[in-house]
Amino acid sequence: MGKALCSSLVFICFFIPLVSANWNILTQKTHGGLMISLKNYCEGWRINVELHNIRDFEVVPEECTEYIGKYMRSTQYKVDSERAIEESLIYLSTSCNLKKDGEDAWIFDIDDTLLSTVPYYKDNLYGGKKLNVTDFEDWIKKGKAPALDYSLKFFNDLKSRGIQVILISSRREYLRSFTTDNLVNVGYHGWAGLILRDPADELISVAKYKSDVRKQLIKNGYRIWGIIGDQYSSFEGTPSSTRGFKLPNPLYYIA
Amino acid sequence: MGKALCSSLVFICFFIPLVSANWNILTQKTHGGLMISLKNYCEGWRINVELHNIRDFEVVPEECTEYIGKYMRSTQYKVDSERAIEESLIYLSTSCNLKKDGEDAWIFDIDDTLLSTVPYYKDNLYGGKKLNVTDFEDWIKKGKAPALDYSLKFFNDLKSRGIQVILISSRREYLRSFTTDNLVNVGYHGWAGLILRDPADELISVAKYKSDVRKQLIKNGYRIWGIIGDQYSSFEGTPSSTRGFKLPNPLYYIA
Repeated sequence: MGKALCSSLVFICFFIPLVSANWNILTQKTHGGLMISLKNYCEGWRINVELHNIRDFEVVPEECTEYIGKYMRSTQYKVDSERAIEESLIYLSTSCNLKKDGEDAWIFDIDDTLLSTVPYYKDNLYGGKKLNVTDFEDWIKKGKAPALDYSLKFFNDLKSRGIQVILISSRREYLRSFTTDNLVNVGYHGWAGLILRDPADELISVAKYKSDVRKQLIKNGYRIWGIIGDQYSSFEGTPSSTRGFKLPNPLYYIA
Repeated sequence: MGKALCSSLVFICFFIPLVSANWNILTQKTHGGLMISLKNYCEGWRINVELHNIRDFEVVPEECTEYIGKYMRSTQYKVDSERAIEESLIYLSTSCNLKKDGEDAWIFDIDDTLLSTVPYYKDNLYGGKKLNVTDFEDWIKKGKAPALDYSLKFFNDLKSRGIQVILISSRREYLRSFTTDNLVNVGYHGWAGLILRDPADELISVAKYKSDVRKQLIKNGYRIWGIIGDQYSSFEGTPSSTRGFKLPNPLYYIA
C-alpha cells in the first residue's frame, strides 16, 4: 500500500511512515530467497496455523504478537468467524436429516467458540507469553468472558430446532460453577450437557478426551450432526465422520 | 486503511479512491449486522475455504475473482506456500525416524503443488468460471505449467535424503506423457512413482482414490512419512495418521 501510494501520489510519500509503520517494508529474506515484509511473515505464520501446518506452538512469535493482536480485534476476525458459523447453518439446513426425537445433537467448545478469551490474551501479549494456567484460571473465575455474538445466535437457533446442544471443554471440572455463571450471564442457557475435564482426563490429550466423550454420547443414543470449535483437537479422532467447523484462532494451540 | 488515512491526513482524502478502489468501503451488511467491505467478505470466503468450512464450491464467487486473482499473484501466496513447505522440512528433520532402506516415502500432488495452474486460471477468471475439463486438459497437454520453486527445492531435498518421492494426481492416465514431459522440463526428475487416474477411478471420489493408492503403497512396504497437497482430498481417509501439509489454494475444490 505504501509503495502504491508513493507511485500514485509522489508528494505524500513523506507521510507514509505515519500510517504504514514498518509492516510493509521488505526487511526479511525467506529460505527461498523472497524479500518479504514483517506483515508477510506474520500473515504466513497465521495462515499456516489455520491450515494446521504449524502445530504445538507454545507462544505466538514475539515479532508477530502485534499483528495477531490487531487481527483478533479486527472486523476481519469477526467476519471470518461469522462465515464459519454461517456455513454451519447452511450445512444444518441442507445436509442434516434431523429426527427431532431429542437425540439430535450439536457440540460446541467453550473458549473462543462460545466465550471470548481475547480480553485475557490482550493483557498477555496476545499469545506471546507462555500460558500461566493459574493466572488464566483466575481470570476464568471472574466470569467476565464475553459471548461471541454469532455463536450465541447459532446456539439459540439450534435450540429452537429441537437440537440438543452439548458443550465439551478442556476447562477443568472444578471451574464448573464459574463457567455456568459466565455462560448464563452472557445469554447462554438451555444446554443439554456441559462436559468438563476430570483430573483423570488431564493424563490424556484433549483430542483423545473429546473423542472419548463423543463416543460415549453416541453410545448414549445421540446423533452428533456437527461440532464447532477453534482448535483442531475438537474434531480429531473417531468418530471422524462428524462434520467440524473450525473458527479461526491464532492465539494458542491445544493438542 | 482508507479510513486510517482519512483521519490522519484529512487533506488527502480526495485521492483515496485512486488507490484503494472500492475494496475497503463498507458496503455490505452481514447476517450478524456487521458493516463490512468487499475485501472483508472475500477474505472471509478465502480463509473459510482454507479452514475447510466451505466445501464443494464449483466457482469462486464472482465478486471475489479479482481479490482471489490478486492473492494468487501476490508475494503473500508464495510466503504462505513456502512456510507450509518449511514446516514439512521441520517435521521431516525432527519427527521422522527414516530407515533409509528404500521404503521411506513422501507423497505429492501435482497441480498447484509441484506445478502451477495459475496461468490457466488467469485466463479463466481465477476460478470464477466453472471448470471446462476439455479446455483444462488441452492446456495441460501444452506442458507449460511452471514449477513451484519451493516445492521443487523440497522435492530435491527429499531425494537427497534417500526418500522415495511418489506423485499421486487426479490427472487422467491418458495425460501421462504430457505430465511427465512438463515435470521434467521444469526440473523434476527421479520420482519413484507417478500415479494417475484410471477410468475406473473416475467413478469414485478423488479422496477415496488417493486413499486407496496410499493403502496399496503401504501394502507394498512403503512407509509414508508425509503428504503435500493443495486439496483436503489429498489427506482424507485412511491411513489417517500420515501427516499432511496443506498448501493454500482458493481457486477450486476437489472432493
